[in-house]
Amino acid sequence: MDSKDMMKRLVEPESVAIIGATRKTGEFALNLVQHLLAYGYTGKVYPVNPNASEISGVQAYHSVGEIDAHIDQAVIMTPREAVPGTLKECADKGIACAVVVAQGFNDAGDKEGKELNRQMKDVIRDTGIRVLGPNTFGIANGFINFSSSFAQIRLDKVPVGVICQSGTFFHGFPEFRLTGKGIDIGNACDIGFIESLEYFEDDPQVKVIGLHIEGINDTKRFLETARRISLKKPIIALKTGKSDRAAKAMQSHTGSLAGNTLLWDSALKSAGIIRVNDMEEFYDIVRLFTIAPLMKNNRIAVATYSGAAGIMTMDALQGSGVEMGELSTQTLQKLKDIAPPWLHVGNPVDFWPIMQAAPNQGLAMRDILDILLSDDELGGVMFLQLAFVDRTAEGLRMFLNYMAARFPDKSFISAIPGSSDVQCITGLQQDGKHVAYPTPERAARAFSRLWQYSRLRNGF
Amino acid sequence: MDSKDMMKRLVEPESVAIIGATRKTGEFALNLVQHLLAYGYTGKVYPVNPNASEISGVQAYHSVGEIDAHIDQAVIMTPREAVPGTLKECADKGIACAVVVAQGFNDAGDKEGKELNRQMKDVIRDTGIRVLGPNTFGIANGFINFSSSFAQIRLDKVPVGVICQSGTFFHGFPEFRLTGKGIDIGNACDIGFIESLEYFEDDPQVKVIGLHIEGINDTKRFLETARRISLKKPIIALKTGKSDRAAKAMQSHTGSLAGNTLLWDSALKSAGIIRVNDMEEFYDIVRLFTIAPLMKNNRIAVATYSGAAGIMTMDALQGSGVEMGELSTQTLQKLKDIAPPWLHVGNPVDFWPIMQAAPNQGLAMRDILDILLSDDELGGVMFLQLAFVDRTAEGLRMFLNYMAARFPDKSFISAIPGSSDVQCITGLQQDGKHVAYPTPERAARAFSRLWQYSRLRNGF
Repeated sequence: MDSKDMMKRLVEPESVAIIGATRKTGEFALNLVQHLLAYGYTGKVYPVNPNASEISGVQAYHSVGEIDAHIDQAVIMTPREAVPGTLKECADKGIACAVVVAQGFNDAGDKEGKELNRQMKDVIRDTGIRVLGPNTFGIANGFINFSSSFAQIRLDKVPVGVICQSGTFFHGFPEFRLTGKGIDIGNACDIGFIESLEYFEDDPQVKVIGLHIEGINDTKRFLETARRISLKKPIIALKTGKSDRAAKAMQSHTGSLAGNTLLWDSALKSAGIIRVNDMEEFYDIVRLFTIAPLMKNNRIAVATYSGAAGIMTMDALQGSGVEMGELSTQTLQKLKDIAPPWLHVGNPVDFWPIMQAAPNQGLAMRDILDILLSDDELGGVMFLQLAFVDRTAEGLRMFLNYMAARFPDKSFISAIPGSSDVQCITGLQQDGKHVAYPTPERAARAFSRLWQYSRLRNGF
Repeated sequence: MDSKDMMKRLVEPESVAIIGATRKTGEFALNLVQHLLAYGYTGKVYPVNPNASEISGVQAYHSVGEIDAHIDQAVIMTPREAVPGTLKECADKGIACAVVVAQGFNDAGDKEGKELNRQMKDVIRDTGIRVLGPNTFGIANGFINFSSSFAQIRLDKVPVGVICQSGTFFHGFPEFRLTGKGIDIGNACDIGFIESLEYFEDDPQVKVIGLHIEGINDTKRFLETARRISLKKPIIALKTGKSDRAAKAMQSHTGSLAGNTLLWDSALKSAGIIRVNDMEEFYDIVRLFTIAPLMKNNRIAVATYSGAAGIMTMDALQGSGVEMGELSTQTLQKLKDIAPPWLHVGNPVDFWPIMQAAPNQGLAMRDILDILLSDDELGGVMFLQLAFVDRTAEGLRMFLNYMAARFPDKSFISAIPGSSDVQCITGLQQDGKHVAYPTPERAARAFSRLWQYSRLRNGF
């Protein structure tokens, strides 16, 4: 079968057999049938368990062969010993692809695991069935309320395709669910980064691609594929395994070879991939690209509630490629017109004294941002404001959505520290117009990454 | 007056005059009298406003001289022009110290600001009154429900003394309020880091000292003071102003000279101060020291839900001074006894397969941590677990509090990513027994800083 058709059955299944479905129910049962009902998945679900005739109210089958219907995908949740045989049954039934959940193949410390891995690969070679995994959460697809994860996750329709080697990325953070469509390639005995990237390449539901990479088998083809796709959609990569010890651990985690981190740096860069440094930056930068438009140049203005936070921003921008230069004479004059006469007006713009001197503080804040956001010489505007308490956080959220909607083509990013920052930042993320972070340094880093990709796309 | 007595009146005032108190009320009025009532401050409050006889139900005075009572502290909230004269009136009234809120002195772009600054300093020299500020939020003291901040803040009894040059640090983050006792020295025309450090030195309510530094006047005496105190309490510093532009901006923010960042690095290190890199690390590391005991050696074990997260931890620990070495034969054997036979048991400990093979998953997780936390050869234990949904986050919080209480002398830090991480992390912080971060890398960084200070204190 064509790889793209197979990937469609894998990520967007209309029917799924769950082999080794548990009969346990309740909160900690890891009952996938129960999860799919809870998600509201509308495809056909066929639980397979030799000892059950129904699971969570859904008719169950004793073997996959008994199911008298077409099946897009099998999720194999059996212990490792049963995997090769079960996979063969799936192939015989005409199923195109299977998710193999179990651990204990090449990642295991014993001979039996390696032997089972060989048997599994033999079935793949002999029958043509394709395998995602082993050692995987499988698929998450918020657009069809589907996930093969044995742990229940929160699904969301975010325009992000994630290809990862760990289910941890299916779980997101409070402000950002991350995975609109997720493919956990696990130990990648068959389906890997390349098929998955190609699936996301023309997917209209996916605007940004996130990669968690431990190792890659066919590096050359991976880089060629990424080079083509990164000119259409931003690709953000968290490549882990920098130390010798990590390389050793990865071999037992996903059986990957780590490789030299500097080589990876230049290889990923040459393919137009944005390499991030840690889990937090991965989430920060992926969600940045779900919202922020590209930058037209690398000069930004910073409007800040606090001189101190403005200085932290400058520290963070140092060497980033993004500059906080002087404002134009025209823009400076507009700001001076509303500032108290003693205030030294420059970049960053210290808006607190301007607001305090104004008859209406809210209007003054709007005017300041209007002046900066409408300055065509600026590639972006950063706004730093505190979320003092829940109520001011709500007001700030409304205000920022309003300003972002007025200037949809300007790169506009906020940092919102304070005791109610999560509330404000999560709300803004859900609204989908404006991206905000809890510290000035994380907002500055986001601008730096945005400029990195803007250069690639615009050929600067 | 003795500096320590004066600082006591400043940070723990039993009576305060609010000069230039506003008559406006409501949410955005910045009415300090109203804030103090809301905080539940039980000291005496004397609002001063030439046009009011009461403010928010509290008797007001037309001038400070009219108040017929002893006053510990004046908060001067007038426009800048009125500051020198008002300060003189306070001195004549016998008030020992004043908070000067207004901006526009040496930080301003005009001559008048500099002239007003000179006049203010003349009053200080001639009368002996001491000044905190100008350009400051003043004081926050959660232990007596007091703050001079014009913006209402959330007070808390956290054992942290903060000395800063921006009110931003009075506002905290959702998981951590930061400022138990805060001294915003602002432009530091008089009271500065040294008096403030000495105040916190013997303060039994303060366990950790946090510094936000833009610049320091008497660097030599500051470093001597810090060197003495850092052997009693950890001092964490965010020193900002790394670029030339930042140095210029700081001159207009707090009138400070930035100085070379490498010089600062070695100077702070020589004084036993832990220098952090950004706002997020400042909060992370200060709150670390409010809870975590010191490490007895630099070897840690990592128990992880995910091989991938374990690898991220290794990446983050590289070059940190903290090592994830091999586990002892005895500890390995104890783990192997409860692990499935095929599992490669090492460090990190992949606990998911062990839990899945166990009759009771919760007990298995407890057993794994028991084995690691009771291993005397380990200096610390890191625990990585997902907060899937709100309910698992609550269970995790209970579990971690239970484990931390069983091993109060072991350095034990968690990373809890997932869609409910904030809930779990904030809850744990409030409970005060266990410290957790949302990513493996931030937990690894915390261990690295904990070891840095443990070495200093234990002379390793």
